[in-house]
Amino acid sequence: MILATPSAPLVDRQAKPGGSVFSVGGVEIGGPEVIVFAGPCAVESEAQIIAAARAVKAGGARILRGGAFKPRTSPYSFQGLGSEALGILREAREETGLPIVTELMDPRHVDEVVETADVIQIGARNMQNFLLLSEIGRSDKPVLLKRGPSASVEELLMAAEYVAKEGNERIVLCERGIKTFETTTRYTLDLGSVAVLKRETHLPVIVDPSHAAGRRDLVLPLARAAIAVGADGVIVETHPRPEQALCDGPQQIPTAEFAAFAAEVRELVALMGKQIG
Amino acid sequence: MILATPSAPLVDRQAKPGGSVFSVGGVEIGGPEVIVFAGPCAVESEAQIIAAARAVKAGGARILRGGAFKPRTSPYSFQGLGSEALGILREAREETGLPIVTELMDPRHVDEVVETADVIQIGARNMQNFLLLSEIGRSDKPVLLKRGPSASVEELLMAAEYVAKEGNERIVLCERGIKTFETTTRYTLDLGSVAVLKRETHLPVIVDPSHAAGRRDLVLPLARAAIAVGADGVIVETHPRPEQALCDGPQQIPTAEFAAFAAEVRELVALMGKQIG
Amino acid sequence: MILATPSAPLVDRQAKPGGSVFSVGGVEIGGPEVIVFAGPCAVESEAQIIAAARAVKAGGARILRGGAFKPRTSPYSFQGLGSEALGILREAREETGLPIVTELMDPRHVDEVVETADVIQIGARNMQNFLLLSEIGRSDKPVLLKRGPSASVEELLMAAEYVAKEGNERIVLCERGIKTFETTTRYTLDLGSVAVLKRETHLPVIVDPSHAAGRRDLVLPLARAAIAVGADGVIVETHPRPEQALCDGPQQIPTAEFAAFAAEVRELVALMGKQIG
Amino acid sequence: MILATPSAPLVDRQAKPGGSVFSVGGVEIGGPEVIVFAGPCAVESEAQIIAAARAVKAGGARILRGGAFKPRTSPYSFQGLGSEALGILREAREETGLPIVTELMDPRHVDEVVETADVIQIGARNMQNFLLLSEIGRSDKPVLLKRGPSASVEELLMAAEYVAKEGNERIVLCERGIKTFETTTRYTLDLGSVAVLKRETHLPVIVDPSHAAGRRDLVLPLARAAIAVGADGVIVETHPRPEQALCDGPQQIPTAEFAAFAAEVRELVALMGKQIG
Repeated sequence: MILATPSAPLVDRQAKPGGSVFSVGGVEIGGPEVIVFAGPCAVESEAQIIAAARAVKAGGARILRGGAFKPRTSPYSFQGLGSEALGILREAREETGLPIVTELMDPRHVDEVVETADVIQIGARNMQNFLLLSEIGRSDKPVLLKRGPSASVEELLMAAEYVAKEGNERIVLCERGIKTFETTTRYTLDLGSVAVLKRETHLPVIVDPSHAAGRRDLVLPLARAAIAVGADGVIVETHPRPEQALCDGPQQIPTAEFAAFAAEVRELVALMGKQIG
Repeated sequence: MILATPSAPLVDRQAKPGGSVFSVGGVEIGGPEVIVFAGPCAVESEAQIIAAARAVKAGGARILRGGAFKPRTSPYSFQGLGSEALGILREAREETGLPIVTELMDPRHVDEVVETADVIQIGARNMQNFLLLSEIGRSDKPVLLKRGPSASVEELLMAAEYVAKEGNERIVLCERGIKTFETTTRYTLDLGSVAVLKRETHLPVIVDPSHAAGRRDLVLPLARAAIAVGADGVIVETHPRPEQALCDGPQQIPTAEFAAFAAEVRELVALMGKQIG
Repeated sequence: MILATPSAPLVDRQAKPGGSVFSVGGVEIGGPEVIVFAGPCAVESEAQIIAAARAVKAGGARILRGGAFKPRTSPYSFQGLGSEALGILREAREETGLPIVTELMDPRHVDEVVETADVIQIGARNMQNFLLLSEIGRSDKPVLLKRGPSASVEELLMAAEYVAKEGNERIVLCERGIKTFETTTRYTLDLGSVAVLKRETHLPVIVDPSHAAGRRDLVLPLARAAIAVGADGVIVETHPRPEQALCDGPQQIPTAEFAAFAAEVRELVALMGKQIG
Repeated sequence: MILATPSAPLVDRQAKPGGSVFSVGGVEIGGPEVIVFAGPCAVESEAQIIAAARAVKAGGARILRGGAFKPRTSPYSFQGLGSEALGILREAREETGLPIVTELMDPRHVDEVVETADVIQIGARNMQNFLLLSEIGRSDKPVLLKRGPSASVEELLMAAEYVAKEGNERIVLCERGIKTFETTTRYTLDLGSVAVLKRETHLPVIVDPSHAAGRRDLVLPLARAAIAVGADGVIVETHPRPEQALCDGPQQIPTAEFAAFAAEVRELVALMGKQIG
């Protein structure tokens, strides 16, 4: 244990030395499978999501991502379709059988989001929204907790502890890049922290190369690196027409290229002696 | 205008080239006076707050700070007295006449906090809690918006724009240090950003040297530097017994020393040709 | 003492609790005077330096800066006039009586630079060029040691210890901004570190607001903040025609405006109860 | 090309779209082989280096590293055995046939180091020691250029351009971690930059997981990630008795475990369809 203040007993590795394995929407995470989560940044329309979901499924990814409520730096940017998007996500699940991960931003939306989603995402900007953490800790849905762009490993573990303390220990941590002086990537993907997290906590850890890179040509090499360093999965953005995307276009992989992307990831996974899910 | 994406028209300096001046609890901010906000990190008891409020008033500070709801990294740390603390703060105001600034963390507490506080604080961890920003934008109380420890100047201005967009333009920005590699201070106080903000936006800007330094011996020199760089005020932590404080003890100035601290700040203010409030 | 590894005994404050005061080119630094160093980024011609030196002197600055050997990120940028510039600096000193500070980059230039300069500058990029530090430690000239843009306070003190260990304790430290994620200023000026340094070491500490800001409109407020936080001096760039400067044009103050700049700095210094030199 | 100021024409990818492949001490780098460089942080004795060299060779690494001149933060730390160490390194090469990489810190040591070393290392602290870069640019030995802990990708490419401009284009770049706020690793390994570099320059790129991690348990996962992201090699520290090492003990792999480490790396390399060298 190398942290300065090791005081997150519920999520500490020592609590479950073998690591946590649990089901997210019927898919086991934390075990031998490397799980690929994929889908567009935001739900923009039924046609867009259904197209994306089919490509995601065909490529072998196991969980569909898509934002209904979008936290945006500017109040004038697209903020997501909200409740309407939740309905569209339910259709996509019906159509493809893929479980859904979507972000919860507002404690007043807890019921609505918990009802629809198979995995509740807490976004990077809300990693220390302690109220939201506690709320979701009282739900029975698995949580995808993204590291804040300036959160230390210790702060991330403490945030997870807020969820666990309320009774929900089905938490997947997600490294998605931190803020540094380097500008050729949008954030600096901190894979050292993934290796640290695998030693410090029993929770599964996945990596989001899309947000870290901010450009699609780096998503594949960073996804491979994430798997090689020991991540339990990756979450990537894919969109039928990235050039028309309402957010994060430059980092989304065209769905037409998703199968090729997934095949390359799968190849590394196989070589690492894992299965892909 | 030197920002990459200058798209916060309501808070942009061009909207009010002379700068905003408005009343926070009867005290004018943004004008010729340098406003000192002071008080303990958290409300711990009636006796503690009344003692602090008297010292704060005697020292010439104009607004009393005190946390009722405390965002804490660990779920096992003291989380504040909540609603009880709001009642204690009302007593302190009655006793001393000082207006109150306290933090709002939970959108469900809006009514309660708005009813008590003269200025609503949005803390650094919630700077991009867009829901909270919008809620408070619909209230009629001035807002103290603290910069997140990894937020860029541009992100801070965008966060303010979220508030302004809902109709509330009485926003005071607060620089309180950013995360860097340097460890001799808790955060790195970014006074260059204060100078930039004074050029980019018409909103008043204050500085919190206590949280930036994390140690009380640096609070005075940093407060003086903040005033010299052009800040409209400073917010500092003071506690009757810092060594017994339930949070942030090392950075709180003992109330017994507050008058001397305030006198030194006042001296610089006078020399800068401003008044102190 | 708050450093992790307090092991720089020669420069430690405890070695000289009252602080070091010594002469740099006949000007006392570390005492009651706040010293202004000024001049262009680089020596470009005799006419340019003489014009700058006269303005610098007229404005009341005490030491003339000017780069003969310029460390530049790109090999295709202007690298300085070298030895020729040293000759021009000597003329400027003869003409105005101002002592000269100029940068040493190459250990093979030690003799030449030591012969001309009254203060030897070790630039930020060379702060951990231990060879250069040791060489200059064996000279009898005062040293201006700039903090590297990613050097911790501790690393800066250790670099100074390299100089002191060879026998030369006339070292002036200089904070000039560190690398962070913030982009509205070129670097983030870390005035908290200046306050820390004044407590940790007996060496004088000055601040370079020009390089930190990267834009001239912020130089005055940051210079004032530096003096307010307790710096023993400031070093600023001024050029007869910044728009034609061969390096760092945007941050250089036109010499025609230098007197006004200096007057404003002097005003704050007077108010702080110090003299200006 | 995504850099802000793409002005390093000699090292730019466009100059050699297929990438540079060249021999370092008889070992081809930049081609299908992934090269492992290994050895202790510093040369401490003949026995230590011979033992390390044998383990390194037995493990299948191709180039022996060992510091003769050590740049150290403190002047009181072990500074390396200097010229004596160069002699010991020559013996190790004779004994094992492994080519040698060692660091050059002082321009006055150029002849001596060039005569002994097969690859000249420019350390992270000297990445912008432009004098050293130019000197080595005039030699005929390959250069291992380490990224400074606060250098941007662009600054690294510019530093390489300094070498190339003098005629020496046999430059291997090395990512070894950057300074950030995260403290669970010594530096933050920036594998995104490795992916960027492979697109921006034709030069080979290797990764140093030992210095980035600062702890040996993370060296293997980070080495695997480096290979997965597309690095042309890795450089790792190994020592017969890390607990007695004169520098960087905690991050050095015991030579007794090096064969197992190398086998695991080799396995990933094979799976990636590359050979290991």
